[in-house]
Amino acid sequence: MKTDWIAVEIDRDEVRAWAVDRDGAVNDHARARDTDLAQLIAPWRGAGRPLVLVSGETGSPASFVPCKPFATLPNAQSDAGIDLRLVPAIAQNAPADVMRGDVVRIAGFMTTNPQFDGVLCMTGPVSRWVHVSAGEIVSFQSFVTGELIDSLVAASVLRHTVGSSGADDVAFQTGFEDGFERPERLLTRIYSLHAEAEREGLAPGLARARLRGLVMGTELAVAKPYWLGQQIAVIGQDDNTKRYTEVLRAQGCPVITADRDTMTMAGFRAARAQIG
Amino acid sequence: MKTDWIAVEIDRDEVRAWAVDRDGAVNDHARARDTDLAQLIAPWRGAGRPLVLVSGETGSPASFVPCKPFATLPNAQSDAGIDLRLVPAIAQNAPADVMRGDVVRIAGFMTTNPQFDGVLCMTGPVSRWVHVSAGEIVSFQSFVTGELIDSLVAASVLRHTVGSSGADDVAFQTGFEDGFERPERLLTRIYSLHAEAEREGLAPGLARARLRGLVMGTELAVAKPYWLGQQIAVIGQDDNTKRYTEVLRAQGCPVITADRDTMTMAGFRAARAQIG
Repeated sequence: MKTDWIAVEIDRDEVRAWAVDRDGAVNDHARARDTDLAQLIAPWRGAGRPLVLVSGETGSPASFVPCKPFATLPNAQSDAGIDLRLVPAIAQNAPADVMRGDVVRIAGFMTTNPQFDGVLCMTGPVSRWVHVSAGEIVSFQSFVTGELIDSLVAASVLRHTVGSSGADDVAFQTGFEDGFERPERLLTRIYSLHAEAEREGLAPGLARARLRGLVMGTELAVAKPYWLGQQIAVIGQDDNTKRYTEVLRAQGCPVITADRDTMTMAGFRAARAQIG
Repeated sequence: MKTDWIAVEIDRDEVRAWAVDRDGAVNDHARARDTDLAQLIAPWRGAGRPLVLVSGETGSPASFVPCKPFATLPNAQSDAGIDLRLVPAIAQNAPADVMRGDVVRIAGFMTTNPQFDGVLCMTGPVSRWVHVSAGEIVSFQSFVTGELIDSLVAASVLRHTVGSSGADDVAFQTGFEDGFERPERLLTRIYSLHAEAEREGLAPGLARARLRGLVMGTELAVAKPYWLGQQIAVIGQDDNTKRYTEVLRAQGCPVITADRDTMTMAGFRAARAQIG
């Protein structure tokens, strides 16, 4: 099938792109690091001026909450013979917050579940709680949960004690309860975990599961005004999604889940439909 | 003057060593990364079997609180013709904690200020609050404050918005109040700072000062049971020491300061005297 339009997601140093046909089916996809966009999509370009929807670009304009996911889909300056449209970022003033790549997934979920009224939990290196009501994003809150774990293990004294992976359920739960009960103690509990690992020879994989539980428990405690008494949808696809789902269900929340990539493409299709 | 004994501090990948004469004066010093200890001290060795005091070694045995800084100074296995003595680590079981390099500085402070009864604030990548009373270390609590800031700026999304240095007083104070008032919110306030820096063009140096204030404020709030109503001694030597001193004085605490390197050498001399 011939490529009708192209979807592009920029996520830090990585670019993912999908060639989509007139029926919305994905014909092909590509991913690359630090690449030139024109080069990445070159194989899919026909003779014309292709429509390219870009999500996650740092320089994107922003809409402020409360708003629909795509208040506008502005044209971008482009000299590469491309009709380049940016999915706007969504920003918030108090507390200050911003999201980019997640906007298209939120739109995908809202298109797929038009009656949903509740809270989306977007998993990832930065996790987000998004209050959605009456077709609008009302407010949201971001947490550096995954970023904090990864950067501590990469670049702090914890690299000696905490492994790069580990999913033990008991260790996770021990850490989770610790963080959930006393979220203000994170800075000292992180060191305490390191000390315990070192003194008592806690295995790096178990220490990783504990650390993840500790930081995620801290997040859940602080995000409580978002999830308490709400219908929740967890959007993601790895083991993180399973963890958020489990801990929210353990708190008595009704939780549904949605696949990250599926929501991404549903969101791009909704943006494409809006352009007409 | 002839070298009488040698002091060595191991701090992560760095080794520092001092050649000390019979009167306790430092004749020479050296520092190196990832070096062989025998090689580093080779220039100071005479014909005999030199006494070498080592602080900060990961494998050191530990004393548990409450205890004096040097309950023991055990011999280490050594095949290099050296009389190697380890400054023991000090550990705590509940909450789990451990300290190594700081032990010698605490001993130095206690030797220099034998009547002191109160709390030591040890600054560094890991900061510590140490309750000292009647010549003993009663309890202590470690915080990953500096480690967290440095690793986030090195390895997370914050590397795009937060600079490697920045000491603006107003920005520091803004961050400090934020962390001090709501210490449980650290994970989300870190992202909020990133979002504000990105959306409003907050300069990287100002963002750094804000981040430092935020994380230090979080630490101060949680360490309150240590410092509230206590006589405090802040031990360090860089700008961190000035910051801890200022924020503690602003809370009405009586604060004295002591120089890190001076306390380190005073502690090594106390250990040397204990060996006889």
